[in-house]
Amino acid sequence: MKSEIVITDQFWTKYTKLIRKEMIPYQWDVLHDRAGISIDKERDDHGIPSEKSNAIENLKIAAGQKKGNHYGWLFQDSDVYKWLESAANSYALNPDDNLLDMMNEVAQLIEEAQDEDGYLSTYYQIERPDLRFKRLFESHELYCAGHLIEASVAHFKATGSKKLINVSEKFVNCISEHFGPEEGKINGADGHQEIELALVKLYEVTGKKEYVDLSSWFLKIRGQDPDFYTKQLIDNKKKGLSTGPIPHINTKYHQAHQPVLDQEEAVGHAVRLVYMAAAMAEVASIHNDEKMFAAARKIWDNIVKKRLYITGGIGSTVHGEAFTFDYDLPNDTMYCETCASIGLLFFAKAMMKNEIDVEYAEIMERTLYNNIISGMALDGKHFFYVNPLEVDPKASKNDPGKSHVKPTRPSWFGCACCPPNVARTLTSLNHYISDVVDENLYIHMYQDFIGSFDMNNQTVSVSMTTDLPYNGYTKVKVSDVSKRFRLMLRLPAWIKNYELNNTDIVYQEEEGYLSIDIDSDQTIEINFELPVLEWRSHPSVKNNLDKVAVQRGPFVYCLEEEDNGSELHLLSLVDMASPEEKTDSILGDFVVLKGKAERRLKDASWKNFLYQSELKLDSKKQEVIFIPYHLWANRSKGEMIVWINKK
Amino acid sequence: MKSEIVITDQFWTKYTKLIRKEMIPYQWDVLHDRAGISIDKERDDHGIPSEKSNAIENLKIAAGQKKGNHYGWLFQDSDVYKWLESAANSYALNPDDNLLDMMNEVAQLIEEAQDEDGYLSTYYQIERPDLRFKRLFESHELYCAGHLIEASVAHFKATGSKKLINVSEKFVNCISEHFGPEEGKINGADGHQEIELALVKLYEVTGKKEYVDLSSWFLKIRGQDPDFYTKQLIDNKKKGLSTGPIPHINTKYHQAHQPVLDQEEAVGHAVRLVYMAAAMAEVASIHNDEKMFAAARKIWDNIVKKRLYITGGIGSTVHGEAFTFDYDLPNDTMYCETCASIGLLFFAKAMMKNEIDVEYAEIMERTLYNNIISGMALDGKHFFYVNPLEVDPKASKNDPGKSHVKPTRPSWFGCACCPPNVARTLTSLNHYISDVVDENLYIHMYQDFIGSFDMNNQTVSVSMTTDLPYNGYTKVKVSDVSKRFRLMLRLPAWIKNYELNNTDIVYQEEEGYLSIDIDSDQTIEINFELPVLEWRSHPSVKNNLDKVAVQRGPFVYCLEEEDNGSELHLLSLVDMASPEEKTDSILGDFVVLKGKAERRLKDASWKNFLYQSELKLDSKKQEVIFIPYHLWANRSKGEMIVWINKK
Repeated sequence: MKSEIVITDQFWTKYTKLIRKEMIPYQWDVLHDRAGISIDKERDDHGIPSEKSNAIENLKIAAGQKKGNHYGWLFQDSDVYKWLESAANSYALNPDDNLLDMMNEVAQLIEEAQDEDGYLSTYYQIERPDLRFKRLFESHELYCAGHLIEASVAHFKATGSKKLINVSEKFVNCISEHFGPEEGKINGADGHQEIELALVKLYEVTGKKEYVDLSSWFLKIRGQDPDFYTKQLIDNKKKGLSTGPIPHINTKYHQAHQPVLDQEEAVGHAVRLVYMAAAMAEVASIHNDEKMFAAARKIWDNIVKKRLYITGGIGSTVHGEAFTFDYDLPNDTMYCETCASIGLLFFAKAMMKNEIDVEYAEIMERTLYNNIISGMALDGKHFFYVNPLEVDPKASKNDPGKSHVKPTRPSWFGCACCPPNVARTLTSLNHYISDVVDENLYIHMYQDFIGSFDMNNQTVSVSMTTDLPYNGYTKVKVSDVSKRFRLMLRLPAWIKNYELNNTDIVYQEEEGYLSIDIDSDQTIEINFELPVLEWRSHPSVKNNLDKVAVQRGPFVYCLEEEDNGSELHLLSLVDMASPEEKTDSILGDFVVLKGKAERRLKDASWKNFLYQSELKLDSKKQEVIFIPYHLWANRSKGEMIVWINKK
Repeated sequence: MKSEIVITDQFWTKYTKLIRKEMIPYQWDVLHDRAGISIDKERDDHGIPSEKSNAIENLKIAAGQKKGNHYGWLFQDSDVYKWLESAANSYALNPDDNLLDMMNEVAQLIEEAQDEDGYLSTYYQIERPDLRFKRLFESHELYCAGHLIEASVAHFKATGSKKLINVSEKFVNCISEHFGPEEGKINGADGHQEIELALVKLYEVTGKKEYVDLSSWFLKIRGQDPDFYTKQLIDNKKKGLSTGPIPHINTKYHQAHQPVLDQEEAVGHAVRLVYMAAAMAEVASIHNDEKMFAAARKIWDNIVKKRLYITGGIGSTVHGEAFTFDYDLPNDTMYCETCASIGLLFFAKAMMKNEIDVEYAEIMERTLYNNIISGMALDGKHFFYVNPLEVDPKASKNDPGKSHVKPTRPSWFGCACCPPNVARTLTSLNHYISDVVDENLYIHMYQDFIGSFDMNNQTVSVSMTTDLPYNGYTKVKVSDVSKRFRLMLRLPAWIKNYELNNTDIVYQEEEGYLSIDIDSDQTIEINFELPVLEWRSHPSVKNNLDKVAVQRGPFVYCLEEEDNGSELHLLSLVDMASPEEKTDSILGDFVVLKGKAERRLKDASWKNFLYQSELKLDSKKQEVIFIPYHLWANRSKGEMIVWINKK
């Protein structure tokens, strides 16, 4: 038996309820192209498919149930798989016959769409069977396979049905027949990493080590020949399978510019990078592959020390949805894709399987409580791809370089990757709360939960009730203790002080955790003191110089025009007041932060001049109101900033 | 007889010499695809033609002298025309038989390339004669016609040859037969404005009013039917002339979204906008068209009060090389194309033909002494398209959103519009020095020159010798005076005080000019005091808050890494010292400005953290060195900023 955790936390069950009640049925309708769904484009790009989803239809055509053409992205199938994974996770939390029927219907369709030889990718099945596995830089065939596998694993865990595990294993066999070091096989990996992570999950439920070996092979073949993708295209042309010019392939975008173990920086498409790095960490822990772990750690350090937004966002540019360079963290043109932060969460968790380092837990929390949940509106029906740290609706509208930065969450996207990714993640948060290493039980996250943990030949029960994320009182109840173990409670970096109510407890601080010797049933009460933190950026982050970002508890805060007026850049923070609890009809219950600020004034002379010399700006005092970042853009459309001027 | 001015100024003859000795022969080689020319791309875009010019070759193919395909942009011909205009201007300043031979060779080729009916546009002649005038949104046929006309006028003025005037008039006849309000003719204008300006010049040398009428018609038909361009494409498809999807056309890019007289803001592609606006001002002055002038003035005011960089640059985004919105003036992602500032110079000069307003002169000077000459390196062989106000070579290399911002001037571009545009402008600066209005002689610019001015039935001689642009002593000698007139000397906005050496002179200040009654030969000596100005931006310009730009005389200054170290954003200006004259082996003679500054320090703790709370940065004192903006990027590659922090 393994550890089992049920999250009972109000803050988080609000989200899983939204996913269950709103999002899963909503996406079901999207996938089936039911009327009344409006689909938005991610940005000004007339090449983006956005009229409809067609995802279920594509599967029906592949299954021979319908006639027609494929519509949508090459990875359109993955929308269905991610829906299924979310649905299965949600079903595991709240079983429901109707949802089971929906899942079974989709599982059946997937099984029927699969080819005899195990292959499954509707675009290539319907349109170009002759190009199977022959355009790997963009085909997303193994990416979709990965999401199919992840959905299968979730479906199996939730329902016990092996129907899709069988489909997945059949597909993996097909892949193994086509890929590998042997003569005549394809010596390269998919342009979008994902199957590497998925194969580890398939191993976890089947116990078949060869899946991890295949994952490791995909990781290690990547970038061995940087011209691999181009050679495929040249070969297709030679064989008459394609016409037209060979596109230029930016191999850094795919992290295929050099062997993965030699990569020292986080480059290219951010989601691909973190999916890859997460798989590296997973494989390293199973194979005890020190080189692989060292490479993953280098990438981790580069992200966390030089390329991470304070909200847990990654990806400094929309061009290639990619990393740029060290300390380049613009607040208004970045990408900070919701999916990329989800990948960073996976990466952190996987790293923790190799070594416990409180930094992994800190980043998991930072990204989860900020950039990830910012991806979903409080109504569960509107979503951000891009999670900016500074927004001006005028700029989003009139500057094409910011057309991807939406001031309000659109209802759905033509490329629907983020919403179901949020759903599958928030319905599986129990994976991120704890780790057991020998006789140590690490608790990384502060949420109400009830858990049982298998360790050292005993199963202990641990439950937590906490006033976090908004207040610091936390109670941890440990029971069924038969043998001595150590409870390691994370000491969050955002606390100032803490106090244990039980004076008889023996504890010590140990590398970011509070280590408590437990040898009998026990209830521990802690009071964390939550100060208002004012973060400063590394001085090489140009745009944040002389600015601060405010945080309290796990939440980074922001300022919205609705509370503070327009032209937020004219405000300078003087100091912060005490936190106040607040109930808002839209935003719900939260802690609001207020501060004293000065607002620079535009005197009348500026009406006629764009530039004036020898002039000082006057200021007036203004109260400023900060709300948690993830709550932004739920009220009126307006400006928002995370970083505020402060001398 | 009209006014004649010969510029003798050292500062400017240095440029005309570079153009004569380096640039014109260099571009001649480029146009002829001689070996050893490396051509750079403007930005990361694999669709940009950049292997060779082929421009002369295209004309030879069109003339039937060679076989082959067209290569290059749709507007490749205009490279030849702009070379010819520069060559003719240069020839007028410094006659030279060899250059005359080159011009005649090209003129002959152009004549031979022209079709029987007057049409001339090598792409359509060689590749798609069936699509003549049928894809106006991008065809550049009338744009090229405009540059042909301008070259013809310059060629005629320099050599007296009417060969190309005849070619131009024949082409304009062809255009008149195809365009116009009459049934069956095309009711729209070229996607890139240029012929409108050129037709006015053709009128000026031929006296044919119908050319101005045609220009006015092109201006007024623009935007009457915003779907005009799309309708052409749909029509082509119906007629089987094209296949594939109809591209989306952003009519704002072409300033064709609404009738020109209704446009109140500077939108879309910046070069197109200012070429259009300049033509509006020209036509308004000839036709005495008050509505047209009022519309031009609205666009002017919008640019100057809300969308103009302090260097005289325009175009806030690379996307469409375009304007964005009021007060959006980012320093590191802007376009600020050299050609756009040249167009702004044209626009200002044309406005002056309608009304004298010192603001026009100020903008002419600002753009000429900064953004325009910044376009050319001191060796005359390297050129900027994009003139940034902040550069970090790391960003140019690693942030695709800044790939257009070059840290050094490339040797040539695939799209070679800017270098010859600089050349034709700097060889015709005598047009911008003065205006005669009734009995007033306005002198707008301070340069050494010798001039004769026809006014009020007399021809007076005026010569200027000045220590400007670097020092303030200026002498104006007026002779051959037979009748009373008023000499109006501009009082630059960048002076603090001035003193006239002649105590007997009667003068008064009048709307930005020093008005001096002249009734006999006279020599006026003025000492302008040139303070170091620290400009502040309008508070709504987000990125310039708490920053200053330094100016002395007409020059905006900048800081380079070579003089000030890297991470220029860490510097804060405290105060400025006295100007110093300097002679540099590369930069030549100029006035350097120095100042006291503080540099923020990164203490060792930042090695391990991207964010820290409750931390103040220490500073150390540093001297900072400013050089005139146009001199930047002539030494080592490095960072550059115009706007420096100052509290």
